[in-house]
Amino acid sequence: MDTLTVELGERSYPIHIASDIFTTLSSLMPVLNGRQLMVVTNTTVAPLYLERVVQSLSSIADVDTVILPDGEQYKNLDTLNSIFTALLEKVHNRKTTLIALGGGVVGDMTGFAAASYQRGVDFIQIPTTLLSQVDSSVGGKTGVNHALGKNMIGAFYQPKSVLIDINTLATLPDRELSAGIAEVIKYGLIYDADFFVWLENNMAALMGRDQQALIYAIKRSCEIKAEVVSKDELESGLRAILNLGHTFGHAIETAMGYGVWLHGEAVSVGMLMAVDLSIRLGWLEDSVADRARALLMQAKLPVVSPDEMTPEKFISLMSVDKKVIDKKIRLVLLTALGTAITTADFSHEALGETLLAV
Amino acid sequence: MDTLTVELGERSYPIHIASDIFTTLSSLMPVLNGRQLMVVTNTTVAPLYLERVVQSLSSIADVDTVILPDGEQYKNLDTLNSIFTALLEKVHNRKTTLIALGGGVVGDMTGFAAASYQRGVDFIQIPTTLLSQVDSSVGGKTGVNHALGKNMIGAFYQPKSVLIDINTLATLPDRELSAGIAEVIKYGLIYDADFFVWLENNMAALMGRDQQALIYAIKRSCEIKAEVVSKDELESGLRAILNLGHTFGHAIETAMGYGVWLHGEAVSVGMLMAVDLSIRLGWLEDSVADRARALLMQAKLPVVSPDEMTPEKFISLMSVDKKVIDKKIRLVLLTALGTAITTADFSHEALGETLLAV
Repeated sequence: MDTLTVELGERSYPIHIASDIFTTLSSLMPVLNGRQLMVVTNTTVAPLYLERVVQSLSSIADVDTVILPDGEQYKNLDTLNSIFTALLEKVHNRKTTLIALGGGVVGDMTGFAAASYQRGVDFIQIPTTLLSQVDSSVGGKTGVNHALGKNMIGAFYQPKSVLIDINTLATLPDRELSAGIAEVIKYGLIYDADFFVWLENNMAALMGRDQQALIYAIKRSCEIKAEVVSKDELESGLRAILNLGHTFGHAIETAMGYGVWLHGEAVSVGMLMAVDLSIRLGWLEDSVADRARALLMQAKLPVVSPDEMTPEKFISLMSVDKKVIDKKIRLVLLTALGTAITTADFSHEALGETLLAV
Repeated sequence: MDTLTVELGERSYPIHIASDIFTTLSSLMPVLNGRQLMVVTNTTVAPLYLERVVQSLSSIADVDTVILPDGEQYKNLDTLNSIFTALLEKVHNRKTTLIALGGGVVGDMTGFAAASYQRGVDFIQIPTTLLSQVDSSVGGKTGVNHALGKNMIGAFYQPKSVLIDINTLATLPDRELSAGIAEVIKYGLIYDADFFVWLENNMAALMGRDQQALIYAIKRSCEIKAEVVSKDELESGLRAILNLGHTFGHAIETAMGYGVWLHGEAVSVGMLMAVDLSIRLGWLEDSVADRARALLMQAKLPVVSPDEMTPEKFISLMSVDKKVIDKKIRLVLLTALGTAITTADFSHEALGETLLAV
């Protein structure tokens, strides 16, 4: 088992990465605040893992469950409320612990439910998709979408631990594996050129679900995320680089309807837009665009924007991004392979050209 | 002008108490994070004060407004979502500041909206009812109700400042003035026997809306609340005493339907139940029950539980209270006039007798 730590003083927590952890889950759990557990999962994950998880946890606590509908289109206040309803119907008190068993949507909603239920209870992440294992389960960003913008409602709220069982990736649909790899590639682009090269050399193994390759990719991704989050938990600066491609990507997701494009798919196109704009501004050498495109294509990810997305539509949707300040769109761009900055220092013309080009 | 400080380290903030502050509002505002303000109010308060507030604030920022329906029955996730919709439609960014202009419902919802919008923006309280001026605007408890329990969804999130204009009390309906006085009496019961005596001597002046009496009652109430909150912001112990009568009161509010009994009215009956139980347990001298009842009656507050509320109904609704741990109901009780504790150390029989007696 590999164990990393997200260093946040009193709120530090471990990330355990291993295969086949569900049967020994109770031994990996942090000390519980009380004797109640609520496992939150969805209709896709429940038939696969819920029984084993509940069985293992029943030895240490009273376990209740709530099963949400599956999909980004359900990541809203109504579904969140169904978690509160389950907690109240089962009379969970403020010493309860919530467990997120599922992908990024389940994790984000469970985390926000934990942040808000009785003004805050503990929660634990058990991410079951590659995307949630390398990104959304680590770092404490929780929340739901609003019809007018993605992740606009939420809280910074850290889990007590993150438990990653890479065996869950065996049942993950190909399209979701690819979506997770988009975020893995992101870490190479923004923070670690050597890791980017490793991905160029090992993409075939990752796509073939080679266990050792997956473990390394997850571990390195979590290390980078943990390091960035430790330095800037509340995103007053550095942390924003984790959003490479996300401002473009959120616009695609919002415009197409939540759930039509997977988050990682939209981020794939968004990262290529960020790379394209960085090159247009003269900050990045041309070859990075080809290398990034080739790697994303090898991961079977989309590399062109959907036809429906005009530059005007992009600009309109990007104007409600959380990084917008005083009506200026701010973007994460690259100054080298492995080095990112957040900036509003680009011309509208260059941005317009990028929106047409990718 | 009187100014107190809620001492919370980096998150300390001032409470300003004065008459006629709306015209000089811009000079009392803390330094704003950005140039955007969103004033949240309701259909009752808007016609009275919104224009003056917006006019005064327009000199320092771009001001937008959102007007909520008035009443505890609208303190829910749907109404909260309408605040997010207004913020997104007007393209407010994460440097915006929300202003709660209204009573406790507006303040609680605006505070939770600020805690959750883009994972946290600043907010300022301008409470316009006595209840919100002496209680809910101070201390950072924010949130909304769930159909199955009051204030079950929310966050601890402190405002940047609290601005109290006692002139707003001139337009407050009698019933709401009384509801606010219930919380004022609470401070005497739990923390300050001298203040309780002062209230016995000055209740006629308060009910006659005497300015000096109101200012003193508000100031002393805010001082006590600020002191308790400074010692225990997240209610791990002491702070719970501020809930004297609230576990009983929330049960009445939930059972009768939100908004039928005002919060302060339900707390009035609840405090008498807490006093009755404290006396039954032999912790408190008998005379306190008569003095508390007389004072509450002088404030035109209800002193008997509604007929619909059977002991069984009370017990069932009190079991989802936030102070319940391991299925034990915990209550704030008095060990002397001016001294309160939170305890589960009472028999079901004594509680049952109290529920029948008051």
